Amino acid sequence: MVNTNQSIPKYHLIAEQIINMIRDGRLPPGARTLSENDIIKQFGVSNTTARKSLQEIELAGWVTKVKGKGTFVRQNKVQRSAHKILSFTKNMLQAGRKPSTRVLDKRILMKDCSKTINGRRYTLKGPIFRLHRLRLADGVPMMLEIRHISTTFCPQIEKKDLSGSLYEIYEKDYKLRLREIDQMLGFELLGAGAREFFDLDKPLPAFRVEGVTFCGKEMILEMEDSFYRADQYRFALRAKSL
Amino acid sequence: MVNTNQSIPKYHLIAEQIINMIRDGRLPPGARTLSENDIIKQFGVSNTTARKSLQEIELAGWVTKVKGKGTFVRQNKVQRSAHKILSFTKNMLQAGRKPSTRVLDKRILMKDCSKTINGRRYTLKGPIFRLHRLRLADGVPMMLEIRHISTTFCPQIEKKDLSGSLYEIYEKDYKLRLREIDQMLGFELLGAGAREFFDLDKPLPAFRVEGVTFCGKEMILEMEDSFYRADQYRFALRAKSL
Repeated sequence: MVNTNQSIPKYHLIAEQIINMIRDGRLPPGARTLSENDIIKQFGVSNTTARKSLQEIELAGWVTKVKGKGTFVRQNKVQRSAHKILSFTKNMLQAGRKPSTRVLDKRILMKDCSKTINGRRYTLKGPIFRLHRLRLADGVPMMLEIRHISTTFCPQIEKKDLSGSLYEIYEKDYKLRLREIDQMLGFELLGAGAREFFDLDKPLPAFRVEGVTFCGKEMILEMEDSFYRADQYRFALRAKSL
Repeated sequence: MVNTNQSIPKYHLIAEQIINMIRDGRLPPGARTLSENDIIKQFGVSNTTARKSLQEIELAGWVTKVKGKGTFVRQNKVQRSAHKILSFTKNMLQAGRKPSTRVLDKRILMKDCSKTINGRRYTLKGPIFRLHRLRLADGVPMMLEIRHISTTFCPQIEKKDLSGSLYEIYEKDYKLRLREIDQMLGFELLGAGAREFFDLDKPLPAFRVEGVTFCGKEMILEMEDSFYRADQYRFALRAKSL
């Protein structure tokens, strides 16, 4: 029997305890986090250990240093359900944030679009409406998306106001019912190409979500390729017995 | 209307095309990726652009440089379903990999364990069996997990062989039925404490999965806190209409 507590460095255990305080809400978003001196007193450790634990918390994205002001607990991540269909717009409103959208590009493509999702190959027949948008919350870029939308199910969608929820347009304007979304979620470190939209100069960790949306059995309504900022999002998953 | 193709750098577009070849299987795992010279000829670009596209593909985790040998396409990521209950062991066997396990620590805790999952607070009553394991596939560390298991539902579980699937022990030895798992998935850059188990000296991007497993209505069987290597895993999600 190995006692892992002996092999895990002290600064890591302290970092975990402070992170737990953030998770619990004992250290709420916006609060000043424990200082080096607080940690030295509270945990009886050296200033090297205290500094290393603060570095670990910052590296893990829980706090942000503000020059000359101190280190503060970041805003909570936005939770996104992976098992319920919910638009970005509604998701942000539920999280108490103000959604907005920048349409980066829109065009009709006179060709098919194919994608392999979870091992199955899907093809959406052209012509296709391709929409490229940046989604923001309280003015902060959260998600970058490219959608390929069926013009068979959504004729003349290019003429709609595309600055809000597409799901609402599908349901209200085209009377479509979103039945199922199959997605795969992976990790990618965003290169300069995608990163520029987020106004960041460092590599940005992101969840890449690729998916296909059905408005009926085998009826493909749209295909999605999105980057969700990994420092801003958390996904809620639910697995059931087979 | 903004034409994003004008603002995205050329090397990024080339990187995307090569990544698509890897996804498609045109460049299978283990294959040598395009060389700088291949890219220069095939896309008609400078060697700076060619080098930058290769760097971007490597940074995104699709290829690995082997010193003196060249750059090769990495093994595909393992797919894990977020909506079906499946043990690590079965998941790896399905992916054609050989699972193994290192038990790092096991102990009985004489206290309760509480966790907030997707906004709901759950408490597992003590005594609790705490199990800390490293899960490997073909000898490569894939996932680090800490499980808190109910000794009410699983008395004397500490005496079982814990080197394989816990789900199988729950079902076969204790005749329990796994009904539902609620989880949250986030991103974390692993600090030195967790990283040492993966034998890596660089920060390791990981999916952190925290969850609670039910073996009946409101009956908590176990709580989980795991780190899945983000360079090795991809999650399959399925959302249904409400």
